[in-house]
Amino acid sequence: MSNKGITPRNEDYSQWYLDIIDRAELAENSPVRGAMVIKPYGYAIWEKIKEQLDQRIKDRGCKNAYFPLFIPKSFLSKEADHVKGFAKECAIVTHYRLKEKEDGTGVEVDPEAKLDEELIVRPTSETIMYDTFSRWITSWRDLPLKINQWVNIVRWERRTRPFLRTSEFLWQEGHTVHETEEQSLEEVLGALEMYRKFAREVLALETLTGIKSESEKFAGANDTYGVEAMMQDGKSLQFGTSHDLGQNFARVFNIQFTNKDGKLEYPWQTSWGVSTRMIGAVVMSHSDDKGLVLPPKIAPIKVVIIPIYSDNDKDKILEYSKGVYNSVKEITEDIEFDDRDYVTAGYKFNEWEKKGVPIRIEIGPRDLENNQCVIVRRDILEKNELPVSNVQEYVENLLDEIQKNILKRSEELLVSNTYSVDSYEEFKDIISARRGFVHAYWCGNPDCEEGIKVDTKATTRCQTEEGRKNTGPCIYCGEHGEEWVFGISY
Amino acid sequence: MSNKGITPRNEDYSQWYLDIIDRAELAENSPVRGAMVIKPYGYAIWEKIKEQLDQRIKDRGCKNAYFPLFIPKSFLSKEADHVKGFAKECAIVTHYRLKEKEDGTGVEVDPEAKLDEELIVRPTSETIMYDTFSRWITSWRDLPLKINQWVNIVRWERRTRPFLRTSEFLWQEGHTVHETEEQSLEEVLGALEMYRKFAREVLALETLTGIKSESEKFAGANDTYGVEAMMQDGKSLQFGTSHDLGQNFARVFNIQFTNKDGKLEYPWQTSWGVSTRMIGAVVMSHSDDKGLVLPPKIAPIKVVIIPIYSDNDKDKILEYSKGVYNSVKEITEDIEFDDRDYVTAGYKFNEWEKKGVPIRIEIGPRDLENNQCVIVRRDILEKNELPVSNVQEYVENLLDEIQKNILKRSEELLVSNTYSVDSYEEFKDIISARRGFVHAYWCGNPDCEEGIKVDTKATTRCQTEEGRKNTGPCIYCGEHGEEWVFGISY
Repeated sequence: MSNKGITPRNEDYSQWYLDIIDRAELAENSPVRGAMVIKPYGYAIWEKIKEQLDQRIKDRGCKNAYFPLFIPKSFLSKEADHVKGFAKECAIVTHYRLKEKEDGTGVEVDPEAKLDEELIVRPTSETIMYDTFSRWITSWRDLPLKINQWVNIVRWERRTRPFLRTSEFLWQEGHTVHETEEQSLEEVLGALEMYRKFAREVLALETLTGIKSESEKFAGANDTYGVEAMMQDGKSLQFGTSHDLGQNFARVFNIQFTNKDGKLEYPWQTSWGVSTRMIGAVVMSHSDDKGLVLPPKIAPIKVVIIPIYSDNDKDKILEYSKGVYNSVKEITEDIEFDDRDYVTAGYKFNEWEKKGVPIRIEIGPRDLENNQCVIVRRDILEKNELPVSNVQEYVENLLDEIQKNILKRSEELLVSNTYSVDSYEEFKDIISARRGFVHAYWCGNPDCEEGIKVDTKATTRCQTEEGRKNTGPCIYCGEHGEEWVFGISY
Repeated sequence: MSNKGITPRNEDYSQWYLDIIDRAELAENSPVRGAMVIKPYGYAIWEKIKEQLDQRIKDRGCKNAYFPLFIPKSFLSKEADHVKGFAKECAIVTHYRLKEKEDGTGVEVDPEAKLDEELIVRPTSETIMYDTFSRWITSWRDLPLKINQWVNIVRWERRTRPFLRTSEFLWQEGHTVHETEEQSLEEVLGALEMYRKFAREVLALETLTGIKSESEKFAGANDTYGVEAMMQDGKSLQFGTSHDLGQNFARVFNIQFTNKDGKLEYPWQTSWGVSTRMIGAVVMSHSDDKGLVLPPKIAPIKVVIIPIYSDNDKDKILEYSKGVYNSVKEITEDIEFDDRDYVTAGYKFNEWEKKGVPIRIEIGPRDLENNQCVIVRRDILEKNELPVSNVQEYVENLLDEIQKNILKRSEELLVSNTYSVDSYEEFKDIISARRGFVHAYWCGNPDCEEGIKVDTKATTRCQTEEGRKNTGPCIYCGEHGEEWVFGISY
């Protein structure tokens, strides 16, 4: 555990984020460019996320499977837009053997072990999956087909930041195939809503959902819907996406089914995913200058118990503290008993605050005497004394209360960073001063979108369902427009 | 679901195995050479295995983490034996971008996007992990360090078979670092024992454990211990391994810690892993000519309920069957209600038998009349009629009974395929006629081991703890030897 402090947010928000990742021991850079090592504490958060989201995905009727890491170059190339979107950031396997150098100084790629066709390390799995789907699907009885996988993904990003953008990351990708366009669109929005609810109910993150513009959509999709979260610096973070793939991939991979009338048809497809990026969103939106703040539902350690003793009362206090520990353990397995005797209590407080443990229970001589304990909640750093007889019920309620409070703060963060403007001047003022989600009319012309981006760095984040109904003059060109949400995104 | 039959074991054991993989819908070949698609039913078995083994690994004090997929070539090269062992079967990333061909016919590798240093897709993660460990470990307080990861692995195997040997597979790899050699050896044997118990208690597989010979050990290890299972054709299957790495990697990656006396020391390391190969072992040892046989503890569906009705009694029978379903569901979530009306009951029986579902409950008009149901257990295909009032308790006990019975068969399979020989003639006779685990004296000379392999295809599988104490003349050269177990391995 690092003893170093954390750069305050208002001093350098970007460094603050990196400090939290480091001091909370979530991840660190690896020797491989842009790839991170997810450390045990960070990975434990991922396991919590994965377990709860996996259940929701299965509840939607999806089954998990596993498809190959490598994608033949010819597969990736089949859908023209798709390959354009991913060609520039692929890791490419060209050889399958190393050999010893003749001068004995090490190993080199064996030129004789060149692959006939290069393999791309999956940047996403539409092509490798849909080739297989074309053999799995023959009749309407095979539909809907709903497959999900939890895997690693490689995209050769130029600028990387832990969790937010890394050349390798972990994600889940759901892929569904349907008889009708209607069912397919229902799935696209159903997955989107699953992500929105998961963000709220588990990650305590309020988000905005809506359709993406042409320039921001997934390469190969008809439409992409996004879940956008608001960070404390007013920037937005795309948290997950859900794609309406239409029949685009079905046509190029020749997925066809016999419909109920006995006719051959192309089915309709969707794909949707969220990644370890979620951890970045959680860190950035909930944490403070003292360190990480975690919603209890994804906290690997929900409660830490810290006995404070001297040589005189050590045994008594440890015994008393163990009693509290055992009582709280009945309501959560995610509990730590910190009886290390080579660091001070103050060091421990600091460490668990940095790690965002929702509840800290301190037990010292005075507590032993008064049959009480001291409870500190991480979200607002409030300290309370409590009779030990109440501790179990109190902790159970407090975990709920903390989860709710963090969500409430996230809702407030989103609301207080949301603006509506009519003019481009106003737009530029707000974006440069406060960023945020700025609702403004846009005509839909990519040139205007690009112009706004060049001027302000703001891009369209999404169009909400209500936004579609609100019309007015495009802030950039004055033509007829619809309401879109702009922002500066991570 | 394929309607095709299954090749009987005694006709073509190898084809029988492939048929089971196919008909039970566990996996299929992918368009990527040697890599398989793990289908939902096969993956669900993997999830059952993973969940239960993960808990045992955590109970040993290991924490999960995630390290990069790519390993810089220079890292892999650091430990001389290690790189020799893996150089011949690596997938190598040399470029990071595709570009459109000038003639517009597709994409090609962009020669300008060549990596300065090639990246190897991890064939195992010692090197990438231990480079990081060298920064994590400074003091004896940082030890033991126990890290595990569940990841995909790539080894460019020439001959592949689903689950048993694939160019990409899924596994867990545990890596531990210790202050003393003694602690490290305790971990090596502790992990081995964990695998042995897991095989027995969860996979219902009896195994043999012991140390491997020099020629069979892990590249870079001082010693490797293996868990060997017996298949129905008398061949053995290495199910998992645990390596004593000594200080070999610590020295080359410069992992050092200050010991309790304030002196810098190299720590002692272990690594150990099991993979999707376990599924191959389960399939091969338990299944029969009707299809897959699964131990209930890893069966994605433990009980299937099949209502058998005509148009006249459909509603009544469905309602009655649902009652049975709800009752059994209270003891297991892994239950399926098969009310498909476009296939016959006979088709369903056949399908679920192929898929190895441990218990099938059939409910027809006669059962409705007599307030009973018909229960068929998959392991011995025995059929019983049962009053519905008893169904819950009966199923619960039967699941236990099936688990035990499959283990018992596995124990018998191992015992009945175990031989002891004193002469090479006898050895050759048994190996050629029956294969099996053949206990025989060997002097430890790799030339004799190689000679035996050339003559008979048999290799040393391992030396058990008792074997070490038994000595006699080497069956190949007559010199002083110890008892080893030989076999023909998958």
